[in-house]
Amino acid sequence: MTWKIKQFGKKPKLNKAVLIEGLPGIGNVGKVVVDFIIDELKAVKLYEMFSYTFPHSVFVNENNLVELPTIEIYYKKMKNGNDLLLLAGDVQPIDEVSCYEFSEKILDMVEELKGSEVITLGGIGLQGIPKKPKVFCTGNSKKIIAKYKKGVALNENIYGVVGPIVGVSGLLLGLAEQRKIPAIAFLAETYSHPMYLGVKGAREILKILNKKLELNIKLKDLDKEIKELETEMMRRTEELSDVSKKTAIKKLKGRIGGEETSYIG
Amino acid sequence: MTWKIKQFGKKPKLNKAVLIEGLPGIGNVGKVVVDFIIDELKAVKLYEMFSYTFPHSVFVNENNLVELPTIEIYYKKMKNGNDLLLLAGDVQPIDEVSCYEFSEKILDMVEELKGSEVITLGGIGLQGIPKKPKVFCTGNSKKIIAKYKKGVALNENIYGVVGPIVGVSGLLLGLAEQRKIPAIAFLAETYSHPMYLGVKGAREILKILNKKLELNIKLKDLDKEIKELETEMMRRTEELSDVSKKTAIKKLKGRIGGEETSYIG
Amino acid sequence: MTWKIKQFGKKPKLNKAVLIEGLPGIGNVGKVVVDFIIDELKAVKLYEMFSYTFPHSVFVNENNLVELPTIEIYYKKMKNGNDLLLLAGDVQPIDEVSCYEFSEKILDMVEELKGSEVITLGGIGLQGIPKKPKVFCTGNSKKIIAKYKKGVALNENIYGVVGPIVGVSGLLLGLAEQRKIPAIAFLAETYSHPMYLGVKGAREILKILNKKLELNIKLKDLDKEIKELETEMMRRTEELSDVSKKTAIKKLKGRIGGEETSYIG
Amino acid sequence: MTWKIKQFGKKPKLNKAVLIEGLPGIGNVGKVVVDFIIDELKAVKLYEMFSYTFPHSVFVNENNLVELPTIEIYYKKMKNGNDLLLLAGDVQPIDEVSCYEFSEKILDMVEELKGSEVITLGGIGLQGIPKKPKVFCTGNSKKIIAKYKKGVALNENIYGVVGPIVGVSGLLLGLAEQRKIPAIAFLAETYSHPMYLGVKGAREILKILNKKLELNIKLKDLDKEIKELETEMMRRTEELSDVSKKTAIKKLKGRIGGEETSYIG
Repeated sequence: MTWKIKQFGKKPKLNKAVLIEGLPGIGNVGKVVVDFIIDELKAVKLYEMFSYTFPHSVFVNENNLVELPTIEIYYKKMKNGNDLLLLAGDVQPIDEVSCYEFSEKILDMVEELKGSEVITLGGIGLQGIPKKPKVFCTGNSKKIIAKYKKGVALNENIYGVVGPIVGVSGLLLGLAEQRKIPAIAFLAETYSHPMYLGVKGAREILKILNKKLELNIKLKDLDKEIKELETEMMRRTEELSDVSKKTAIKKLKGRIGGEETSYIG
Repeated sequence: MTWKIKQFGKKPKLNKAVLIEGLPGIGNVGKVVVDFIIDELKAVKLYEMFSYTFPHSVFVNENNLVELPTIEIYYKKMKNGNDLLLLAGDVQPIDEVSCYEFSEKILDMVEELKGSEVITLGGIGLQGIPKKPKVFCTGNSKKIIAKYKKGVALNENIYGVVGPIVGVSGLLLGLAEQRKIPAIAFLAETYSHPMYLGVKGAREILKILNKKLELNIKLKDLDKEIKELETEMMRRTEELSDVSKKTAIKKLKGRIGGEETSYIG
Repeated sequence: MTWKIKQFGKKPKLNKAVLIEGLPGIGNVGKVVVDFIIDELKAVKLYEMFSYTFPHSVFVNENNLVELPTIEIYYKKMKNGNDLLLLAGDVQPIDEVSCYEFSEKILDMVEELKGSEVITLGGIGLQGIPKKPKVFCTGNSKKIIAKYKKGVALNENIYGVVGPIVGVSGLLLGLAEQRKIPAIAFLAETYSHPMYLGVKGAREILKILNKKLELNIKLKDLDKEIKELETEMMRRTEELSDVSKKTAIKKLKGRIGGEETSYIG
Repeated sequence: MTWKIKQFGKKPKLNKAVLIEGLPGIGNVGKVVVDFIIDELKAVKLYEMFSYTFPHSVFVNENNLVELPTIEIYYKKMKNGNDLLLLAGDVQPIDEVSCYEFSEKILDMVEELKGSEVITLGGIGLQGIPKKPKVFCTGNSKKIIAKYKKGVALNENIYGVVGPIVGVSGLLLGLAEQRKIPAIAFLAETYSHPMYLGVKGAREILKILNKKLELNIKLKDLDKEIKELETEMMRRTEELSDVSKKTAIKKLKGRIGGEETSYIG
């Protein structure tokens, strides 16, 4: 068994769907954005993916129950413009081969659902907390960059600013090119400290997606909510182990509980 | 060859057997508990499991003879309540895929032997030695947690207290859920120092198991024996390499021998 | 899918082609040499190789677009003497098995194209920057060493000077012997600092190749150009992460751009 | 391709052959012993084993030529007592699964050649250089330990003295038990410093083998030769990288050459 995919409900007919990827990574910038969009737009779960190549551990959720690590695909039919496919999850595949295989599988799904574009999200780790994080972009064609740059604060001069883009966020761009699927990455500056949650960078990416994809998400409410949570988060993340950041993100949208964090073997 | 399973004697007919897992982990809390139960109840060995994905080394036992690392399943027919299946061993599978495969194999056996529940045991590593270790629990259903919490000092508010539960102790819970087998983990606080043997935490878990599963193990004797060994252990573990803890645990129930410990290549 | 090989144009008829390997390694000495030869001689791309065992990341190129890591084979028909096959790339296969498989595949191609010899290039890491780097050689037969040593400053007394030769540069030599293909390695002294780009050592190797293979490359221009770039490089590499060295090398032949370098997850 | 085995000459008819393993390990104690026996007894090469799971590197030999890492089996017909099979090599298989597979393959050969016993050799790493290294033993039966202990300075009280025996030296013992082949390990105390060559410990093991297997090797000459080399070695090993120890050992029996050692990528 390599990949186990569970489908929820019927396969929808989507209009030029754009896949937005937001798996864990630096500052969890992409994860914060996609998890927030799924909640705000009440997106519908379509697939749950599971693999023996995921980390061999379970998470404890807010109900004190365990959950195997999973990666999920949601969809959302939109009134205006492109429908959405949202790639969210607790983990990324661990090794190189699994990461390539997983990314190919995601692109298979995009093609099956007649998707038109892929957007991947990530963070650029800085040595300190950026006051106003800039968002950079790169992609697999000049055309998609030109399209998304228009009318928003998006910096395409990324050459020399970043090293390789590691993991699913990078591979989806490169492998999409082989299939002639236009793909772009939005990378927001964030603090590279392992405990830092890049909510400020996530907010900047959300602004761009909101405008370009007409998401109609109310950013004012988000700004307020994030500000509060951010303060609390930073104080708490000092006590959190690296792997516990997942828990931290879940709390972004939920209650804050628990007293003490340790690693269990 | 991936897994080699050797059966001892006939497959028994068990009454709603509960599997208790106690493989090596933080403080070896689970291992101490399950090895002790096997000895006290004179449980019967049913399976010996061996795999090329286990560590590529042999241990030297009390008879100065070598032993390949193995994982074993014992059973014990009980007069009252559920029969027991006991999962004990020297090692855990090393990599992610093997750990998933192994855990599925264990659950196959539980189903074959008409097991009704799975209990996994582990430690929560603290920065210092806890005076009176608390036992936390999590599981794959509210129902099994409610059942085991009743009448004992078991803390279910574990969310935010621990990060992911890594290895067989975690995967058994998550994978059991996919098969509708109720599963619960008992996690005792212990000192996270790699040389520390979590006998105090093990004792707290034993108390709970003793009561809930009517094991009829005399804890007074255990308390006394453990106290003596613990003092000796702590003094000695300073000289022990990480891999030698296995040896240390064996001595818990045996004689104390040898003068000096080193690693052999 | 293990290896994906894309052919460009027709397979050429080559005259006793010599394969020169220059993949990333210590000081990227070999990579600098082979990338420079490809540019100067306007060599023709024949194969592009791609594998899931390559690093799971993409690079951002000078056009701000992403590129999957690839390894390429170029050829160049020469007026005098042997034709050339040039092995260049962004990466080396990651694990042992892939590295062996890849090297065998390269030798398959050499045999198919009726290649006559293999030359691999690399660096010998010193504790400081060598003023005038020496070039050492080793190979799989006394005969090829004698042939290349004649008339150039090449030191064959390498026994005891270097440890094992790791990666494709080493395996091509050893595996070529099994196929009776003469193979030699040119290893130039360089500074072992991970950020240092071994252009001085590369220059020494180029001198030797230029003479022995009659490449007719103008070294004066190269010397001047390299000197300028080297100064700039050393200042900049302090800010570069290890993985960004690839970017650095690309810049050797292009413009210098960008302001700040970080790692993206 | 997993294992490539090359046979030299005809398969010999051996009289109750004893396999002695001496692959690289702590202090290279076993390697020094077996390489010395092969030279002294002029043993005949029977098999050369090669695998893609070996380290992906080549060594430079005394002739300044490269060699792929190999493991070899030699045999020696003896006038008195058991014939010998000698397992020598540059490397050990890297990962767990390969190490198990390799050890099984060796035992297949032992059975095919009607071998009667297996002896593995290794070092016990101490914090300092032992003046007179003790030799400990362990094995897979009381019988073989009793047999070899008789009349020599061999300490069988090893329980608690060592942790797990890692690699081929350990697995051969454990896996031989599954085939009912008596197997014993001789482990000599040595200095655990990665650069230290355990010649003193090797000498103690040689004494035992010489007596018990009637090897008729003149230890006086060896003692003198080793003493000289040891002094030189210790001075030189300070400059040697870990991987270069192989080179160092080769020199034990050859000339001392070269000036400076570095690692090549």
